[in-house]
Amino acid sequence: MSMDHTYKVVELVGSSSEGLQQAIENAVNRAGQTLRGLDWFEVKEIRGNIQEGNIAWYQVKVGIGFRVLDPADLHRE
Amino acid sequence: MSMDHTYKVVELVGSSSEGLQQAIENAVNRAGQTLRGLDWFEVKEIRGNIQEGNIAWYQVKVGIGFRVLDPADLHRE
Amino acid sequence: MSMDHTYKVVELVGSSSEGLQQAIENAVNRAGQTLRGLDWFEVKEIRGNIQEGNIAWYQVKVGIGFRVLDPADLHRE
Amino acid sequence: MSMDHTYKVVELVGSSSEGLQQAIENAVNRAGQTLRGLDWFEVKEIRGNIQEGNIAWYQVKVGIGFRVLDPADLHRE
Amino acid sequence: MSMDHTYKVVELVGSSSEGLQQAIENAVNRAGQTLRGLDWFEVKEIRGNIQEGNIAWYQVKVGIGFRVLDPADLHRE
Amino acid sequence: MSMDHTYKVVELVGSSSEGLQQAIENAVNRAGQTLRGLDWFEVKEIRGNIQEGNIAWYQVKVGIGFRVLDPADLHRE
Amino acid sequence: MSMDHTYKVVELVGSSSEGLQQAIENAVNRAGQTLRGLDWFEVKEIRGNIQEGNIAWYQVKVGIGFRVLDPADLHRE
Amino acid sequence: MSMDHTYKVVELVGSSSEGLQQAIENAVNRAGQTLRGLDWFEVKEIRGNIQEGNIAWYQVKVGIGFRVLDPADLHRE
Amino acid sequence: MSMDHTYKVVELVGSSSEGLQQAIENAVNRAGQTLRGLDWFEVKEIRGNIQEGNIAWYQVKVGIGFRVLDPADLHRE
Amino acid sequence: MSMDHTYKVVELVGSSSEGLQQAIENAVNRAGQTLRGLDWFEVKEIRGNIQEGNIAWYQVKVGIGFRVLDPADLHRE
Amino acid sequence: MSMDHTYKVVELVGSSSEGLQQAIENAVNRAGQTLRGLDWFEVKEIRGNIQEGNIAWYQVKVGIGFRVLDPADLHRE
Amino acid sequence: MSMDHTYKVVELVGSSSEGLQQAIENAVNRAGQTLRGLDWFEVKEIRGNIQEGNIAWYQVKVGIGFRVLDPADLHRE
Repeated sequence: MSMDHTYKVVELVGSSSEGLQQAIENAVNRAGQTLRGLDWFEVKEIRGNIQEGNIAWYQVKVGIGFRVLDPADLHRE
Repeated sequence: MSMDHTYKVVELVGSSSEGLQQAIENAVNRAGQTLRGLDWFEVKEIRGNIQEGNIAWYQVKVGIGFRVLDPADLHRE
Repeated sequence: MSMDHTYKVVELVGSSSEGLQQAIENAVNRAGQTLRGLDWFEVKEIRGNIQEGNIAWYQVKVGIGFRVLDPADLHRE
Repeated sequence: MSMDHTYKVVELVGSSSEGLQQAIENAVNRAGQTLRGLDWFEVKEIRGNIQEGNIAWYQVKVGIGFRVLDPADLHRE
Repeated sequence: MSMDHTYKVVELVGSSSEGLQQAIENAVNRAGQTLRGLDWFEVKEIRGNIQEGNIAWYQVKVGIGFRVLDPADLHRE
Repeated sequence: MSMDHTYKVVELVGSSSEGLQQAIENAVNRAGQTLRGLDWFEVKEIRGNIQEGNIAWYQVKVGIGFRVLDPADLHRE
Repeated sequence: MSMDHTYKVVELVGSSSEGLQQAIENAVNRAGQTLRGLDWFEVKEIRGNIQEGNIAWYQVKVGIGFRVLDPADLHRE
Repeated sequence: MSMDHTYKVVELVGSSSEGLQQAIENAVNRAGQTLRGLDWFEVKEIRGNIQEGNIAWYQVKVGIGFRVLDPADLHRE
Repeated sequence: MSMDHTYKVVELVGSSSEGLQQAIENAVNRAGQTLRGLDWFEVKEIRGNIQEGNIAWYQVKVGIGFRVLDPADLHRE
Repeated sequence: MSMDHTYKVVELVGSSSEGLQQAIENAVNRAGQTLRGLDWFEVKEIRGNIQEGNIAWYQVKVGIGFRVLDPADLHRE
Repeated sequence: MSMDHTYKVVELVGSSSEGLQQAIENAVNRAGQTLRGLDWFEVKEIRGNIQEGNIAWYQVKVGIGFRVLDPADLHRE
Repeated sequence: MSMDHTYKVVELVGSSSEGLQQAIENAVNRAGQTLRGLDWFEVKEIRGNIQEGNIAWYQVKVGIGFRVLDPADLHRE
């Protein structure tokens, strides 16, 4: 039965020179390359890098939750 | 006299599949459909839902302040 | 279409002399008596009242989110 | 029986040109005009507006808790 | 010598339809299936899901600390 | 007259192998053995100890407020 | 030599029907009745009690620091 | 056009032997002696100094926001 | 040698009627008009102003860090 | 049986002109002069005093937990 | 191209009987034994263990960020 | 008269390859090169940079308070 799921939360920092939202999506997409069962994200910190007086990189710390489908998943990400 | 206004703050979560800013605007616009005197908003939490490894919904918790114009407004929103 | 839902979050304090979990459930059940579309809750504060050296009441502050189905719902709870 | 009360917390911002305490009291008094069973308040934020280099308005965000006496109260404030 | 241990903290969300404490224990037990040296836990967030006006699932975010016994353990969980 | 009471808050950590709620109650009961006028508690932190992959002890940090009835009470707890 | 002092911080809740500032001062004055070497205070929480729709009591949680002059002082307050 | 203003926030600690509100006003007034365009303040911390068992000084940390009217203003305060 | 740099952090609020990201960039660009050595930013608060039921201005509080190249820089921004 | 221990946490501020770590140790050592069963500490705040442009004192607020061995211990520290 | 990096943050607790800084360095060094691309750390919590009235172990919780160089790195640490 | 002082707080990030405490002192010393009346500091954030698996720089964000002796001081730091 699917009751009583366990989820794991990993913390990634996505970066993008395009913008805030792209940085979030880069983090989520990167996680999706190797993890199954991604379920939600939560933004924890929005920062960035400035070069020559302009924003060079948005850097967004994101918690990403995914369902632990079997014990082997605990070793992932 | 209009001095000493009172404001009420309601907490809404706007969602959007388009992006972070649209989710904020959806929350504010929804509030504007039934409340008069909306004055300011403050973002409290940025989360979202992931499906098939991509962000399906941005969900942004927003506090929205509006002026209480008469006692009946206290029953609104 | 059902996309781009808006949710409202209300803050209730449930109390119970039986225990912590019952206080949470009392708050949720009370909300469910008059609100449709309850979706999630989040515990914000756990306190209680002591009488004669024993816990008399657990008091738990709970944020309860529900879907705003139509503008009239904004006037509810 | 009166056990297991439920309380609702609403968030108001009271303002006053006279001072900090008056802003709190304005918020509580406004709530008292339409709500029964007010029980406690908690100060969440103290801000204000400056004009011509002087404080024009104190603005205090206050959570106000009141007892939900019957389901209809859930629609109030 | 056993001095100067290093611990790793992983973040899991346990869920349970039975209750708050069972959700915590589900998270810890799941971690115990694949990790050695579990040492402590800390509750970070208590939330849950509501269906038909009743709590369907408690969801508790738990940080779980375990001793890193050898470098290979850094790849676990 | 009984107006303008002063309360003192002490911080205890109750522990229990049985569960979260029992840990809170152990802290409150212990305080009640030597202090008069206990009035309220507030949960500040929920942690615990894991042994052999199972929760061995719940450890809950609790602030406990009691009325200071006379100056000598300031020396208590 | 007076270098390397140690201070202890106790947490009191002062109350007053007159106002916020009086509640702070009541807490400090009460501490001063039995403790030597009071040095500073910090306001941690401003709450209060409402009766008949008016503020009946301001309740302010205050941390009060005092110098530990000799080991016996550690038993005080 | 006056759209897209930028504001700067400075952090001052006002002190007063008279009281909490006077300490806030002292900070704002001091800022107003050299800065144009003061717009709002926000209280960040309320502390104070105790001498001979009585409050000698209220010390309130206040963030003060002012409009940056031209680049030279960035050098102010 | 370039070791042991010191940075200063200033707090600006950028505003924009276009959106959240533009408000951040306005703040950073304004800082760049008069300060050398801008290095990073961190978003601290996202708020905004509502007029006629629509968002009129995004207002984002941003901490901006820049390298202090020589003592005279301490007087800047 | 030794199960279900209760701990008390006291808050001390240790100071030292030598450094941060010495200030922590001074607080713990002072507590150890009159309290039995000290078990853990947690750093809550790192501040200090500056004189003539140099750090004169590190002041570190430390929570110190000790086991309550018998009711009389509740009167200690 | 090296743009748009993703970073992962792991949480370790380093311990040391020598001191606070050594505990931080132990955590970072341990991470460096199995992870490539370590980039930054941030201290989240400073605690420790007391034995016989003296500090036996400093325990510092540290978030450590490292660049995710290829998908396989997501399985590391 | 010296009553009712106003203080200004500036935020600096000191860095050091030697250690945590040296980074704090570098920030304070740098401030002391151009500011009179430095009075206290408070540590807000401890981070650092890692290179080749070792800590290269400690970076500590420090709030530094100094007395505003005359209006011109408001333009300093």
